Amino acid sequence: MTMPDDPFGDAYRCVHESGAEPGVTHLVYEMDDGYIYAEDAVNYFHGPETWLPVDRMACERATGRILDIGCGPGRHGSVLARDGKDVVGIDTSRGGVEVARLRGVEAHVASVSELPEDLGTFDTFLMLGANLGLLGDQENSRAVLEGLARHARPGARLLGTNMAFAEESRADPRAPQGVHTARAHSGEEFVRMRVRHRTAATDWFDFLFCPPERLEKVTHGTPWTVHAIHQDDSTAWPTYLADLRLES
Amino acid sequence: MTMPDDPFGDAYRCVHESGAEPGVTHLVYEMDDGYIYAEDAVNYFHGPETWLPVDRMACERATGRILDIGCGPGRHGSVLARDGKDVVGIDTSRGGVEVARLRGVEAHVASVSELPEDLGTFDTFLMLGANLGLLGDQENSRAVLEGLARHARPGARLLGTNMAFAEESRADPRAPQGVHTARAHSGEEFVRMRVRHRTAATDWFDFLFCPPERLEKVTHGTPWTVHAIHQDDSTAWPTYLADLRLES
Repeated sequence: MTMPDDPFGDAYRCVHESGAEPGVTHLVYEMDDGYIYAEDAVNYFHGPETWLPVDRMACERATGRILDIGCGPGRHGSVLARDGKDVVGIDTSRGGVEVARLRGVEAHVASVSELPEDLGTFDTFLMLGANLGLLGDQENSRAVLEGLARHARPGARLLGTNMAFAEESRADPRAPQGVHTARAHSGEEFVRMRVRHRTAATDWFDFLFCPPERLEKVTHGTPWTVHAIHQDDSTAWPTYLADLRLES
Repeated sequence: MTMPDDPFGDAYRCVHESGAEPGVTHLVYEMDDGYIYAEDAVNYFHGPETWLPVDRMACERATGRILDIGCGPGRHGSVLARDGKDVVGIDTSRGGVEVARLRGVEAHVASVSELPEDLGTFDTFLMLGANLGLLGDQENSRAVLEGLARHARPGARLLGTNMAFAEESRADPRAPQGVHTARAHSGEEFVRMRVRHRTAATDWFDFLFCPPERLEKVTHGTPWTVHAIHQDDSTAWPTYLADLRLES
């Protein structure tokens, strides 16, 4: 059995071994329509002062036992752990989990779509750095939200962030890299992309932008309700924090 | 007539308009065997303290009227001009030339393979940042060197830098990004690559690594001779400055 490529993990390991120096290596995000961009992988090692304000807001609100979904090398989880919070991270990247552990985070290789039964239960689920997009399309969202509910304690919250953009924003040249290549597909806005690092590449996947006004539809019929949306228009592009609550 | 893509120029313009801030945008270098890497385009705006030592050495030795071949946004040319040197830059990137001019460099859109007749004559030709690789293969090198000789003043020098690596270095994991994907081809070491920025991409091209020991063969039968090779082993990967002289 061959292991799948782990471009995220390879990049995180390089940066970690360098002592988190900038300029060591970059992650490359390639869209299937020819658009490409890169970012310094050290960004995943930087502290709260560099985070999206909505990500900071989510971390401040995280209470009890916390699951950091898509934790990477522990960008948020290491800070939460250092602050004495009870946080567990999961990521599909083996290298991400390895580095998160080295940085003081209890982390496990797992997908939000298939949570291990022995993961236990949580008061707060975090999907940060626009990871609310991992909910995927309507069908997938339902399965993910139901899976999370099986690991939720009474009164649990799901705090997820994403970019807020409307149909017409795709043509806006100020839109962040990637967003303006999003296409409407069955009523969803998504980009089909893959992530590359040196010779490693993920499979192509669809990253969904879930506009805040769609969340009511996404949660409909699931154990979750939209408690609040906090939109932040202070950044170059509007972002938002969705605060979902487990129905009591 | 449509203009060809100018990924370099697009990136340089972005960085220049930002006031040369880091993290604004990246150039992506894609090899045809699947290897990919990126670098912050701001690197082309940084001063001598960030240059390869062999590039600094070349600039210190540049005298008289200087042609900076592949000048980009004037990484070296702007410093030479500020130091009062008489420098002209050429680059195939329209945006590169535009930004170089804004940064105080007399620059022209031109290829080293087809130098404009009215460019005049020079005492020093610079091929920095590993641009000696632009000499290309044996046949192309001869044409380029003969073309430069037609624009050379008596006693002219060609100061070019490149990475020094041998056949076995390709497997060395410490090799710089790109190098270890180089392949032997008709006795040459090269990478077939293209450069991308957002939706823009160059055509695929071969970038040749010309090991210093091959330079005698490259210059044989041309108006140039190898005067000296300065190899620098202090960097992560050995680089060298080739000092070629016009035969008198």
